[in-house]
Amino acid sequence: MEIEFLGTGAGSPSKTRNVSSLALKLLDERNEVWLFDCGEGTQHQILKTSIRPRKVTKIFITHLHGDHIFGLPGFLASRANQGGEAGLTIYGPEGIERFVRTSLQVTQTRLPYKLTFKLLANPGVAFEDETFKVSFDTLDHRITSFGFRVEEKPHPGELLIEKVKAAKVPMGPVYGQLKAGKTVTLADGRRLDGHDFIGPAQLGRTVAILGDTRKTEHTLQLAQDADVLVHESTFGPEEAKLARQYFHTTNLQAAKMAKAAGAKRLLLNHISARYIGKGAAMLEKSAQKIFAPTHVVHDLETIDIPFAKEKTACVN
Amino acid sequence: MEIEFLGTGAGSPSKTRNVSSLALKLLDERNEVWLFDCGEGTQHQILKTSIRPRKVTKIFITHLHGDHIFGLPGFLASRANQGGEAGLTIYGPEGIERFVRTSLQVTQTRLPYKLTFKLLANPGVAFEDETFKVSFDTLDHRITSFGFRVEEKPHPGELLIEKVKAAKVPMGPVYGQLKAGKTVTLADGRRLDGHDFIGPAQLGRTVAILGDTRKTEHTLQLAQDADVLVHESTFGPEEAKLARQYFHTTNLQAAKMAKAAGAKRLLLNHISARYIGKGAAMLEKSAQKIFAPTHVVHDLETIDIPFAKEKTACVN
Repeated sequence: MEIEFLGTGAGSPSKTRNVSSLALKLLDERNEVWLFDCGEGTQHQILKTSIRPRKVTKIFITHLHGDHIFGLPGFLASRANQGGEAGLTIYGPEGIERFVRTSLQVTQTRLPYKLTFKLLANPGVAFEDETFKVSFDTLDHRITSFGFRVEEKPHPGELLIEKVKAAKVPMGPVYGQLKAGKTVTLADGRRLDGHDFIGPAQLGRTVAILGDTRKTEHTLQLAQDADVLVHESTFGPEEAKLARQYFHTTNLQAAKMAKAAGAKRLLLNHISARYIGKGAAMLEKSAQKIFAPTHVVHDLETIDIPFAKEKTACVN
Repeated sequence: MEIEFLGTGAGSPSKTRNVSSLALKLLDERNEVWLFDCGEGTQHQILKTSIRPRKVTKIFITHLHGDHIFGLPGFLASRANQGGEAGLTIYGPEGIERFVRTSLQVTQTRLPYKLTFKLLANPGVAFEDETFKVSFDTLDHRITSFGFRVEEKPHPGELLIEKVKAAKVPMGPVYGQLKAGKTVTLADGRRLDGHDFIGPAQLGRTVAILGDTRKTEHTLQLAQDADVLVHESTFGPEEAKLARQYFHTTNLQAAKMAKAAGAKRLLLNHISARYIGKGAAMLEKSAQKIFAPTHVVHDLETIDIPFAKEKTACVN
């Protein structure tokens, strides 16, 4: 599980930061990539990465401001040109389907894959299957804006082969039954509980990815104990008033929320063009005084999200 | 008058060529810049140039394929962020207004300048004033596609001051009347014809800028005696069949049209990603065998369009 930041700027593209998009790379986990937002030029940024557009199966849209969605039609069209045939689902607020469908209709773009829209309205679960759950909640922005909590479900423990062999269990389908945690009776009459032969389950990872927002209590639930919180930081330490006025957050407010939520790591994005170079470093340093594991990300930076070792130990 | 090519690729952006857009820079002539097409990432390309978005007053759209228009909403929004207050007019086929208005509505983008749409349908004149005329005609593409002929009107001749002085014309408003070509009667009774005191008019320049198209006879009128013909070259010398099938042109077909139209220079754009590096050079060289002043343009290349000296002489 990795996050690759495709655009980390605010409002308009600049020479160093494109408008908003990030890729949650779940290649080992699902052989898929999920995008969160898709500002203009996202497909151009992807050209500079190893991401294959056809692997993008889901796009989550935090809100409908142009710097978060104007790259969608072009990405969808180019995905088709690059052999994308697997279906793709877009999760987003009311209006996203109208924008995309109009863009495709006017340009007479016919996609060779199925495009599905899941309208997000009342907070809840956007997506869930055996391995992942994505829930969302509202934030506090000028227009409807969502934050997403992506939870990886626990990985079942592996069969402890050496222990099975030591118990002199004969080779055969019994192995599979033990791995599934079933109780089996061997030919020699012994009854074995599968749970005694399975290693510890690996707790899944949790990532919270937020759209534009003022400081809001909803962040606490979204980012509770998360391995990573991705939070906007449009304004700097002295600009709480401006942040409130423009429905955005300062770096310090984001750091306080990360700390209060018990997140392990804070990644700040949506950086204003006013904070270039040393400005961005200042945003990072001043936030670190509140929450040490804070980092201001830059375009095309990849952040690995490892399994939490101490959590695995707890499950034992 | 210059043309700066912002995107010279076909279909999807590549690492070396963005999708379609070019800027006709009329800074000396009108203190304006006109865009022709506005594919995704046009505003990103503009960041690498000296073009100020607020100077862009007109955008001409050749046709509605996504690689020619998906950059429009983002450009319009960013123009507003960058102090653009002067009105802007978009000339294009039926559907362009629906795409732009929907994009702005869904994203709740309110522009601080007046946005006007001029629907292009039956071939004719898109725009005309004292200094420029833009006419358009249909081409032969899968969807409605236009070619534009931009004609600069003749610059009136300058007043020949030395000649006026030699005729001992007293200083005063008479100078202005002579410059305007009027006949004036001096205090000493002499009648002077202004035309005798005005230098040669400077013929204006003509640029033909075409959208995607198969080879079509309409190009002959659009590019008749033009200083520059900008023509697509999606396919190469051996691909006339493919070009016809996909409603595009080969480099050789474009060269033949430029020659037949009596154009002075041919600039080939809309280059497929299959023709990178040496491929593009081959497109240029093989076309030059038919029409020597042919050039395959690249992104961010600026072409100056000087006044034609021999034409000025003819007017004398």
